[in-house]
Amino acid sequence: MSFALNGRPGVSEATRERILRIAKEMNWRPHSAARALGGARADAVGLVVARPVETIGVEPFFGQLLAGLQAELSAKSIALHLMVVEDTAAEIEVYRRWVSEHRVDAFVVVDLQVKDPRIAVLEELQVPSLILGGPGRHGGLTSVWADDRKAMLSVVEYLAALGHRRIAHLAGMPAFHHTARRMRALRDHAKRLELIDAVSIPTDYSDAQGAAATRTLLARSPRPTAIIYDSDVMAVAGLAVAAEMGVSVPDELSIVSFEDSVLTRIVHPPITALVRDTFALARQAARSVLAAIEDPGSARDLETATPILTVRGSTSPPPGDAIHETV
Amino acid sequence: MSFALNGRPGVSEATRERILRIAKEMNWRPHSAARALGGARADAVGLVVARPVETIGVEPFFGQLLAGLQAELSAKSIALHLMVVEDTAAEIEVYRRWVSEHRVDAFVVVDLQVKDPRIAVLEELQVPSLILGGPGRHGGLTSVWADDRKAMLSVVEYLAALGHRRIAHLAGMPAFHHTARRMRALRDHAKRLELIDAVSIPTDYSDAQGAAATRTLLARSPRPTAIIYDSDVMAVAGLAVAAEMGVSVPDELSIVSFEDSVLTRIVHPPITALVRDTFALARQAARSVLAAIEDPGSARDLETATPILTVRGSTSPPPGDAIHETV
Repeated sequence: MSFALNGRPGVSEATRERILRIAKEMNWRPHSAARALGGARADAVGLVVARPVETIGVEPFFGQLLAGLQAELSAKSIALHLMVVEDTAAEIEVYRRWVSEHRVDAFVVVDLQVKDPRIAVLEELQVPSLILGGPGRHGGLTSVWADDRKAMLSVVEYLAALGHRRIAHLAGMPAFHHTARRMRALRDHAKRLELIDAVSIPTDYSDAQGAAATRTLLARSPRPTAIIYDSDVMAVAGLAVAAEMGVSVPDELSIVSFEDSVLTRIVHPPITALVRDTFALARQAARSVLAAIEDPGSARDLETATPILTVRGSTSPPPGDAIHETV
Repeated sequence: MSFALNGRPGVSEATRERILRIAKEMNWRPHSAARALGGARADAVGLVVARPVETIGVEPFFGQLLAGLQAELSAKSIALHLMVVEDTAAEIEVYRRWVSEHRVDAFVVVDLQVKDPRIAVLEELQVPSLILGGPGRHGGLTSVWADDRKAMLSVVEYLAALGHRRIAHLAGMPAFHHTARRMRALRDHAKRLELIDAVSIPTDYSDAQGAAATRTLLARSPRPTAIIYDSDVMAVAGLAVAAEMGVSVPDELSIVSFEDSVLTRIVHPPITALVRDTFALARQAARSVLAAIEDPGSARDLETATPILTVRGSTSPPPGDAIHETV
């Protein structure tokens, strides 16, 4: 504070001392921008999530994300400053406000979109930001990502090798970068893998839409012999629908979940799933955020492990008649 | 700021104006204690959780809690300032630090203990605090609670009415106030309900311990005909163990979960559960916190709805020979 007053024109030495004494007595401190320039830390990382507030409580992903972030941040006594908002516009407003009020030292950004308006704003605000998602689409900001295209291919190639020719994909929202990459991977490789039917159906990730779309698919003739679900909640809901409709898993229907969690492991049969360690991913994100706070110029694009297909009881070759069906 | 300087001895009008002008140019603000006295708000509510960081991602309770809190707080642009810590001592340290740094306007406190050292500290810090838990054990602080004793009785009386005489309870940790109340309710009413066996087994709430304890119980002879699980994760894990051991649910074993969630509803058979609206409870907690911030003297003890027993496919009368067994 005294440094900021040094050499200030029009401030005598006596006045300077008086100001500093009063400021000290009053416990005044440089605020917001001034504080930021002075290097004071907020000791908090911001996380603003634009999702329906109810889904936060249902998706295991979110809890794993918070846990992984906190596993690294709390060791440095850095808190998470968290808010759930309605939409992307509100999210951007919160970014601007928290930066101007110097409430956080950095942001972790989730749900990367195909055309994401948040990137330019965060670059303009010049606050260290870590994007969970990629590759690409995150401007000059630091990013941590896993390859959803490769992951989807590992699922579809496995199902095709088992003999499946009619594969459905209950996707998330196509506006999300990772959803778009999964859908395109299935579409682009359907012909090479000699699939007769390879459809992606967008959903909102809810168990309700997962169940409803599964009922629709299983009522078709011929119906798909394998369904890939973009979330564990939807996969388990789909398994329950199969039981309810008397469709045997895995004999008549194979089920794969794109997300693994306690959910997929404790049902019967346990569900074949892509195992991605969200907790570890979030830890890596936290480490990258800490590095970005230390050195804002260190932005880079870090690919983490591609989710690994873990085969459990919910997948098998399709019924014999489905194998011998030709295009 | 100008108010704070008014009438200050030894400060001339000219110096006062000069100080204010410089303070404004430098973007100085009253800090921490001074800010608090001046009524400035941190616009954040603190939540410090002393649980193993991994369990945060597994327990649906935690996501529901955050979602419900945010449903009320974000409407007022109030953030959650969140940290996960190792133990109660670390939690208390964070309370002290955040209050001295004026990072939060209030705390929400979870996992009320039977002898809870946090209560006296929060009273001493004179920061509005909302305890999720009770009745009692929360000193003069505001509390929102549901009656775990009544809830346990509703389960045990229902099972006894169906004819169950050997009932096991896979409990959480007895140091928690709500766990202690559940265990005592079962113990105190076992004789009146003519139970032959009524045992509570403490666990750490994990699916691993839920599964392990279920295996032990089902290997006994005679084995319990009904198991009450303190969490949805453990109940679903228990259901999977029953399937694995060839014990038919509900014909040979009834299963009740003390917590409801998407987990208990999507398995087959769906699990009879106490339905407590954690999301609504957390919303009420947030409203109470906002009231306590507005008027710190308004502390009170608010009982919310007792969880309601919702019967699904996992409960039925016990096998005939178990009904006719006598003490």
